Amino acid sequence: MHKLLNPKSIAFFGASNSFFTMGTTMALNIKKSGIKLYPVHPREEKVIGLKAYKSVEDLPEVPDLAIFVIPARAVLEEMEKCGEFGINRAIVVSGGFSEIGEEGETFEKELVSVANKHKIRFLGPNTLGIYNAHNNLNTMWFPFPPEKGGISLIAQSGTIANHTFPMLRRLGYKFSKIISIGNEADIDIVDCLEYLMADLNTKSIAMYIEGVRRFKEFMNVAGEATKVKPVVALYAGGTEAGARACKSHTAAITGKDEIYDGMFKQCGILRAKTIDELFDWAFALSVQPTLKGKKIGILTDSGGSGACMADCCERIGLEIPLLSPEVQNELRKHASKVGFTKNPVDLTFDLDPSKFYEKIPKILLKNVDGLLCYGIFGSKFFEEIKKFASSDVNVPVDEIKGATYKFIEKLPKISTEYNKPIIGVSFVGREDDAVAFLQDHGIPVYPTPERAAGAMKALYVYSILKDQQMRKQTRELKRKREDKKKITTLMENESKELLEEYGIKTAKCYVAATKREAVELAKEIGFPVVLKILSPDVVHKSDIGGVKLNLRNESEVERAYEEIIANAKKVTDKITGVTVQKMLDGGIELAVGVIKELNCGHVITFGLGGVFVEVLKDVSYRVIPIHEVDAESMIEEIRGYRILAGHRGMKADIDSLKSLLIRVSDLIEDHPEISELDLNPVFANPDGCVVVDARIFVS
Amino acid sequence: MHKLLNPKSIAFFGASNSFFTMGTTMALNIKKSGIKLYPVHPREEKVIGLKAYKSVEDLPEVPDLAIFVIPARAVLEEMEKCGEFGINRAIVVSGGFSEIGEEGETFEKELVSVANKHKIRFLGPNTLGIYNAHNNLNTMWFPFPPEKGGISLIAQSGTIANHTFPMLRRLGYKFSKIISIGNEADIDIVDCLEYLMADLNTKSIAMYIEGVRRFKEFMNVAGEATKVKPVVALYAGGTEAGARACKSHTAAITGKDEIYDGMFKQCGILRAKTIDELFDWAFALSVQPTLKGKKIGILTDSGGSGACMADCCERIGLEIPLLSPEVQNELRKHASKVGFTKNPVDLTFDLDPSKFYEKIPKILLKNVDGLLCYGIFGSKFFEEIKKFASSDVNVPVDEIKGATYKFIEKLPKISTEYNKPIIGVSFVGREDDAVAFLQDHGIPVYPTPERAAGAMKALYVYSILKDQQMRKQTRELKRKREDKKKITTLMENESKELLEEYGIKTAKCYVAATKREAVELAKEIGFPVVLKILSPDVVHKSDIGGVKLNLRNESEVERAYEEIIANAKKVTDKITGVTVQKMLDGGIELAVGVIKELNCGHVITFGLGGVFVEVLKDVSYRVIPIHEVDAESMIEEIRGYRILAGHRGMKADIDSLKSLLIRVSDLIEDHPEISELDLNPVFANPDGCVVVDARIFVS
Repeated sequence: MHKLLNPKSIAFFGASNSFFTMGTTMALNIKKSGIKLYPVHPREEKVIGLKAYKSVEDLPEVPDLAIFVIPARAVLEEMEKCGEFGINRAIVVSGGFSEIGEEGETFEKELVSVANKHKIRFLGPNTLGIYNAHNNLNTMWFPFPPEKGGISLIAQSGTIANHTFPMLRRLGYKFSKIISIGNEADIDIVDCLEYLMADLNTKSIAMYIEGVRRFKEFMNVAGEATKVKPVVALYAGGTEAGARACKSHTAAITGKDEIYDGMFKQCGILRAKTIDELFDWAFALSVQPTLKGKKIGILTDSGGSGACMADCCERIGLEIPLLSPEVQNELRKHASKVGFTKNPVDLTFDLDPSKFYEKIPKILLKNVDGLLCYGIFGSKFFEEIKKFASSDVNVPVDEIKGATYKFIEKLPKISTEYNKPIIGVSFVGREDDAVAFLQDHGIPVYPTPERAAGAMKALYVYSILKDQQMRKQTRELKRKREDKKKITTLMENESKELLEEYGIKTAKCYVAATKREAVELAKEIGFPVVLKILSPDVVHKSDIGGVKLNLRNESEVERAYEEIIANAKKVTDKITGVTVQKMLDGGIELAVGVIKELNCGHVITFGLGGVFVEVLKDVSYRVIPIHEVDAESMIEEIRGYRILAGHRGMKADIDSLKSLLIRVSDLIEDHPEISELDLNPVFANPDGCVVVDARIFVS
Repeated sequence: MHKLLNPKSIAFFGASNSFFTMGTTMALNIKKSGIKLYPVHPREEKVIGLKAYKSVEDLPEVPDLAIFVIPARAVLEEMEKCGEFGINRAIVVSGGFSEIGEEGETFEKELVSVANKHKIRFLGPNTLGIYNAHNNLNTMWFPFPPEKGGISLIAQSGTIANHTFPMLRRLGYKFSKIISIGNEADIDIVDCLEYLMADLNTKSIAMYIEGVRRFKEFMNVAGEATKVKPVVALYAGGTEAGARACKSHTAAITGKDEIYDGMFKQCGILRAKTIDELFDWAFALSVQPTLKGKKIGILTDSGGSGACMADCCERIGLEIPLLSPEVQNELRKHASKVGFTKNPVDLTFDLDPSKFYEKIPKILLKNVDGLLCYGIFGSKFFEEIKKFASSDVNVPVDEIKGATYKFIEKLPKISTEYNKPIIGVSFVGREDDAVAFLQDHGIPVYPTPERAAGAMKALYVYSILKDQQMRKQTRELKRKREDKKKITTLMENESKELLEEYGIKTAKCYVAATKREAVELAKEIGFPVVLKILSPDVVHKSDIGGVKLNLRNESEVERAYEEIIANAKKVTDKITGVTVQKMLDGGIELAVGVIKELNCGHVITFGLGGVFVEVLKDVSYRVIPIHEVDAESMIEEIRGYRILAGHRGMKADIDSLKSLLIRVSDLIEDHPEISELDLNPVFANPDGCVVVDARIFVS
């Protein structure tokens, strides 16, 4: 990766003297960087003002990198020659490979085999290449990349990597490296993430993802990366329409939204839902310290913006604490007569920049964890007025500039001094010098209150996620590593036996093949009991009338047996009998499941049980294996967590739930042949939890 | 309002020749409009180049409007003089009134009384005034308002009304009128809404709300307004921190978020959650037809943007239908070799603008309800390249411009022709001529795929809301209008009797004062029965062990009676006895409630019952009285609606639920003395619904 991002010289295939090819524009952008560029062209003497070479063999040196913007078939030929000539890094911009279907897939395989033969590492095909702010190299189509800074972007889309340049410049976001990874025939997202994780210039990593092929490797690398720097991801492949679009675009192997969502949490990755969030958050995370608590101070010169920020913060889970009378007194020394000090602190119309940029922020940061500021005005406003009003009144732009500059530089220093984040908001953009100054000195300034609040929240979320990742480091996974005998699909009683082997408590059930046996077992276990159909053909037992609860005496058991068997006979002949188990008193109904997903592997799910919650889809997902921290967070993230933590006399033993999830994870690791596991319901109460019904399938 | 927005001449108090006052800047902005301006200043001969007058009496004519930017106390004096002079419209910019507390409230009352005396209608205090694009009058602080167009904004914040100017210009959003309403001592949000509803230049209305004082009047006017034009609102007063900020800002009377949320739906108002949404949606709604179905076509020249749009659309409830083979064949005639036609339709790199702006949109709009387009590039990109590459290669900017212009004007026409919305996306802003052209010709172009998708959704939501409002028009509310005898707080049995009077089915309960009576009643009703404590002191009966369910025989009833009475005695002496009612077989548990909120009046709530849903807060709110349409939408909007509509053998009779809600609304209208009503649980099944437990309080 390093050589690819820092070539001393580049051979370029596909530039011409016609402006109407993508290759020409890309070559122009590269030429601008000052890096030695050798256009290869079959006919021209000169291309974009540079000496052109008929073939790669004619070049005066072996370049560090070859870039191809020629038809797919031609890439194969030229790549071969490059390899023979000794080039071992390439960027294949050309489309027409696996993203277009079968024919393209063949080309892509050939491409890989040529590359392997010559030990060429390459990016693409179907990529726009790279931007490296440190050597000013931009191989992409749009010129004028964002300024140099701390964000690095990995994108499974050239558009997100490149078309966004004007937007990113306008917003003042600063980048280290941008990598468009295309079809990932060779270098993939995992390689890039691994590289950027160790890259000192990269302070935060943003990713646009349509699907991860090396899923487990990605999780491993991401889990390590987030321990050292923040990672934000936007995932577009989770919906049906998104998946269709991604498939046609980069032939991505997409996966269900909930699984990626759980996977991101598990790896400590912040998940952005929009392009705005992706870059907003990555920028704040690249320049500001994390937010260690939820208490936010708001400083504003306007009530409306203060209200929007306060409202939005509370809505997204941050706190706007009422400031103590002492703090308010201190503030009142500075706030003007019509100002407010409770938090938001509203200076109203006040032209003394020392208050806004120094005095008030200092007082506030002593008492809160982070600061949001609205009211950043430099001289843009005054220059605009001057345009039409200078004949009417003296508009002292320079005087105002001077006063602002005396104090504005204090704000970034205060953030550093207190090691607490400060984030600004302004409806004026970088055309205003104060906005530009702050953005250029590490204080992000966002275009709306809500985006600023969102970025502040991201600084908090990362501090939590990082902490979780660090806690994983210190715990050894206790996995049973001996080779286990493979199981086949299990009946309910066998499933429960297997669970018990792993220390999971179940409501034991006993098999009765006849009515007589059922009654005897019920008497032995003690009334009331539950009878359930036992048949390899019946999966959803209650749907066919195969479950009878709360049977209190012999005759109820007899009648239940008859009904169950009669019901079952309507749908199948294969009836083993019934199971008899103790009727449990209940507790909170939960459901734990495992599914096996193409490319992602086994995924564990956790949620409240019962029909309501099934509809409400209040379920958390993680990829197996899980750590204790993962179990904890997947329990805490469901909306119904408040019930588990204790509500109206209901309460669960959270530790036993964590342990249940981890044991299920262990079981699946030992038995990867399991394709589906369904524990539903699990009853939880303050003393522990017990699996009432269990199904295990092997594919 | 008309005169206030269209004055022929203005008296201005508070402008000087010093640039460092807000008044001076505002006066400069007014002068720019060319409207006759009379600065009133006690000492100066000239102010901002205009003849100044010592006092309002000295003016050569009676101006249509007076604007005050002087201290609160001075406003009172000058307003008096203005009134005597015959001025009857005013804008009071000055702060220091009710928003600062007691002293200010006194000033504000005096201000109102002076105004009333002279029949002056005024805006403010604590406002920045107005912007009217049609006479170019901008009384606010920021110069350079957004361009003339169809959005009108009412804002309870000068910042949102005015500081946003640079952002709104940058985004290309176009406005008719902007009104900053400040403390609303006289003209308020209801007046403004009423005016804009009838204003022909206003195509959509945006509102920034911190709290509505005349709540019922607002609902009436808004309910009418949304029948004729779309209204979008951002509400900042719903959280605790938001309310605190609003209170200090405009002394707003805020209300719970859920109530405003329900109220907005009830009036047909779209609720925006961010400033971006407020303006994004209002712009699309002001220039584009509504979206009549959910099917969206996506046209893109880039896979990544297409994927983001597709993913986002599905996430927010729009559909990206797979196009039929026939349509795909038709498209394939135009799409280049590496393009895709399934939807998203991806042209990839293609420099022929006739496809993008005409051919493909026409085919798509025949088959979908609305179109999202990514790939709007004019000549900005080429101009940028030309800057540094013109010596290397010929960059034919004019040629490209010509080709684009030939076709770009087709796009707005196609939208008009099909009466279906088209919305664009571009990471380049208005600095690009194609983006600016489309924005100026009625095709909104948003900076990110998600914002474009969000605006498209808004066009759909408004079509639904408008339809609901229109349906209200055709139905008469059937209210019992006779004067009802006032009730006092009711015991459970009395509550149920009252409900039955309104045709609401209840599980009738009978009062037993002794154990004997309880047993006799149980026998009469038939086992199993339920016993519940009856005591004016006990509100949450089950919390104190005051409810016993499923009692199957005499001895169970006796034991239950004893336990209930014993439990109740621990908390109160006032025990009337117990109620006995039939144990119902269940059904879906629901809860219907009424609360009385300061300023908002009675609010009805609906949700699934039971402890889980209490925690999950799956509840809808509406303000009483409700129409049938409201009842319908409040049932449909809860997340658990799928259960009611039919899920796993559960199902409710939706009509009987609607009728229940409407009858409760009727009951409350007849008995406004009721402060709280709680029907929980209500059991619903396919045959109807029945109130199992009921509590009614009178304050």
